[in-house]
Amino acid sequence: MTAPRIDGTRLLNRIKRLGAVGALPDGGVCRLALTDEDRTGRDLLVIWMRELGLEVSIDAIGNIWGVRAGIEDGPPVMVGSHVDSVATGGLYDGVLGVMTGLEIAAALDDAGTRTRKPFAVAAFTNEEGARFAPDMMGSGVHQGALDLSEMLATVGIDGAVLGDELRRIGYAGDIAPRSLVPAAFLELHVEQGPVLEREGVRIGAVTGVQGISWTEFTVSGQSNHAGTTPMAMRHDAGLVAARIAVEARAIASDFGPPQVATVGLVEVEPGLVNVVPQTARMTVDLRNTDNERLKAAEARLREAAARFAAEEGCAVTARSLARFDPVAFDPTLVDRVENAARQRQLGVRRMPSGAGHDAQMFAPNCPTAMVFVPSVGGLSHNINEHTEPHDLVAGAEVLLDVVLDLLGETQ
Amino acid sequence: MTAPRIDGTRLLNRIKRLGAVGALPDGGVCRLALTDEDRTGRDLLVIWMRELGLEVSIDAIGNIWGVRAGIEDGPPVMVGSHVDSVATGGLYDGVLGVMTGLEIAAALDDAGTRTRKPFAVAAFTNEEGARFAPDMMGSGVHQGALDLSEMLATVGIDGAVLGDELRRIGYAGDIAPRSLVPAAFLELHVEQGPVLEREGVRIGAVTGVQGISWTEFTVSGQSNHAGTTPMAMRHDAGLVAARIAVEARAIASDFGPPQVATVGLVEVEPGLVNVVPQTARMTVDLRNTDNERLKAAEARLREAAARFAAEEGCAVTARSLARFDPVAFDPTLVDRVENAARQRQLGVRRMPSGAGHDAQMFAPNCPTAMVFVPSVGGLSHNINEHTEPHDLVAGAEVLLDVVLDLLGETQ
Repeated sequence: MTAPRIDGTRLLNRIKRLGAVGALPDGGVCRLALTDEDRTGRDLLVIWMRELGLEVSIDAIGNIWGVRAGIEDGPPVMVGSHVDSVATGGLYDGVLGVMTGLEIAAALDDAGTRTRKPFAVAAFTNEEGARFAPDMMGSGVHQGALDLSEMLATVGIDGAVLGDELRRIGYAGDIAPRSLVPAAFLELHVEQGPVLEREGVRIGAVTGVQGISWTEFTVSGQSNHAGTTPMAMRHDAGLVAARIAVEARAIASDFGPPQVATVGLVEVEPGLVNVVPQTARMTVDLRNTDNERLKAAEARLREAAARFAAEEGCAVTARSLARFDPVAFDPTLVDRVENAARQRQLGVRRMPSGAGHDAQMFAPNCPTAMVFVPSVGGLSHNINEHTEPHDLVAGAEVLLDVVLDLLGETQ
Repeated sequence: MTAPRIDGTRLLNRIKRLGAVGALPDGGVCRLALTDEDRTGRDLLVIWMRELGLEVSIDAIGNIWGVRAGIEDGPPVMVGSHVDSVATGGLYDGVLGVMTGLEIAAALDDAGTRTRKPFAVAAFTNEEGARFAPDMMGSGVHQGALDLSEMLATVGIDGAVLGDELRRIGYAGDIAPRSLVPAAFLELHVEQGPVLEREGVRIGAVTGVQGISWTEFTVSGQSNHAGTTPMAMRHDAGLVAARIAVEARAIASDFGPPQVATVGLVEVEPGLVNVVPQTARMTVDLRNTDNERLKAAEARLREAAARFAAEEGCAVTARSLARFDPVAFDPTLVDRVENAARQRQLGVRRMPSGAGHDAQMFAPNCPTAMVFVPSVGGLSHNINEHTEPHDLVAGAEVLLDVVLDLLGETQ
């Protein structure tokens, strides 16, 4: 009997074939959740699962999983991610995790391996949140963090209702949420950031997911003539917004890594060269792995915003657009990922994930971990997203090692 | 023989009748330059000029002036402003100056006054620049600061060509630019700022017009994921823009009045909560009555912008959108305005104009001055623009006194 091994060519070929579904003219893909393209991608996944003899299930939010039986019954070790994309997505975000699950199932078959625990491959609905908010929806419903009926009623950016679209594309299953807690959950994903590439490290052992806080600030001042209004009589909403943006950067600097702060959106009205802005709307994205530090950053920002507004004679309101606590992955499982990489002579570093992933929905309920591989130039959510083939395969090999360990005694 | 005097009711009535042309449903007017509404307003003005026996001339850029003969020939004392408006304009901006010219002519007639010098009332084409850029176009061509054929070729925000529109509305005259330099030029205008009202002063003796510098900064950085990109690896175009905005305010504070600085427009791309801005575009409007101080402000701002960009690993380009040197009005004439107000027991203060006006085009060529009356709440370019009737009349009376003095010995 030979040990199961990753067939890199087969893995890359499946990624390529799925990347042809919803392919964009200049590269990359558009498979927004529950569109015709998403359906075609799902259909291909289900065909592949059945070819591998997996028993396919579809739940009420459209999550798909296929189970390879173990010697014993009981919860499976699950490998999963998503196959939906943003509007201008790359080939690997999500797809890598699901295709690696298929490849592990194929590798087990090739080696004639029977495992103690069952093994499952899963693809979760609407991880991206690009058509329907919130993101990580399927895994959130699957693990009970989000309410099924509320999610089915979600209206997309195109006016479509999520439940209708699920039925339309034939993926409204009947399995209830919270019906499956795996024995363990693992997800291989591209880093979507520049750290591994910059450090020349090939494997990230992901320790958890940063907590995320999105706040929208709306500043109300007074529109005035830029020439005739003395500075002392101004109520410049745009200036308050600029000071908040500078403060957000100062918070990130003062707190130090892993604290990050981003002002992605600023809009001023009326937006004319010679008119003092009457209103400004802006967003601040704060992230930290430590919830207490994140709360401190949020408090400092809100306090500063109120102070800047008061100094300018403006009003400011703060609205939370999103708030996720940090997630810590299973320390033992993170160690296993790190050790598996070392045993394969791969450079490895422990790191938090800056982005959200399906795995974080499993972390409260079962041992969970993630493996990262480098993103060239740190690019993601971009048609030029790229990971070198040897890194994709290395990540799959590390995942295979951890999964085999978890699946237990083989014969 | 009685002395000429302003008939407030007649003046206000003309303002009201002109305000009915292009009236907006909620108040205010829209008489964008060379539209049908502007034509109707011009027609009304020409009718009134002819009713007063003025000799009407129209030049090649559509400026209209009517002359009341003097005992002697030679250049007239001219009172003028404009009758075009911004899209949501008030009743007084521009109109007050032209209607006061008509009222002075009527007052001279009523009193049976013959003046030594001729008297002229003028309305200049496209002072606002709201449909065709640049602003102060008619007076600029009239006094030789702007090129006629270039201005005739201007394309408006609606795609119309200025020369075509002039012909269409019947105001393409044949008098060449630079054919008339008045003996003196005077303009009564609403302040468009809050200073007179705040100080409880009814008359502004305008000493000149602030120099204006408009700069557009375009910052190029790198779009990156807000969660996965460490702060040290960012090239955040939005942060650079925010720092420039804060610096603009600091310049105004450090320089002190009359330096003003305004960031009226900021746009970031792609403008998403969780994406570091790749590009930012912003404008900075700097004004000062002292050209050397204005140049120093411009230099400090550009130097700071370059430094902020370099610190963030971004590129920045600065483009001048407009640059007018400060204009100083005739000191003797400014004194006369101030004295006339005092003699009428009106509170008066000397002040620069923060906004541009037709008068500044005359200042290099003939003795020129302006009179300001208070704007309630400092509002202008706004349908709620308002000046109290007694202030409108007081301004007209001060202007009349100065004009009579300039027109010379009467009989």
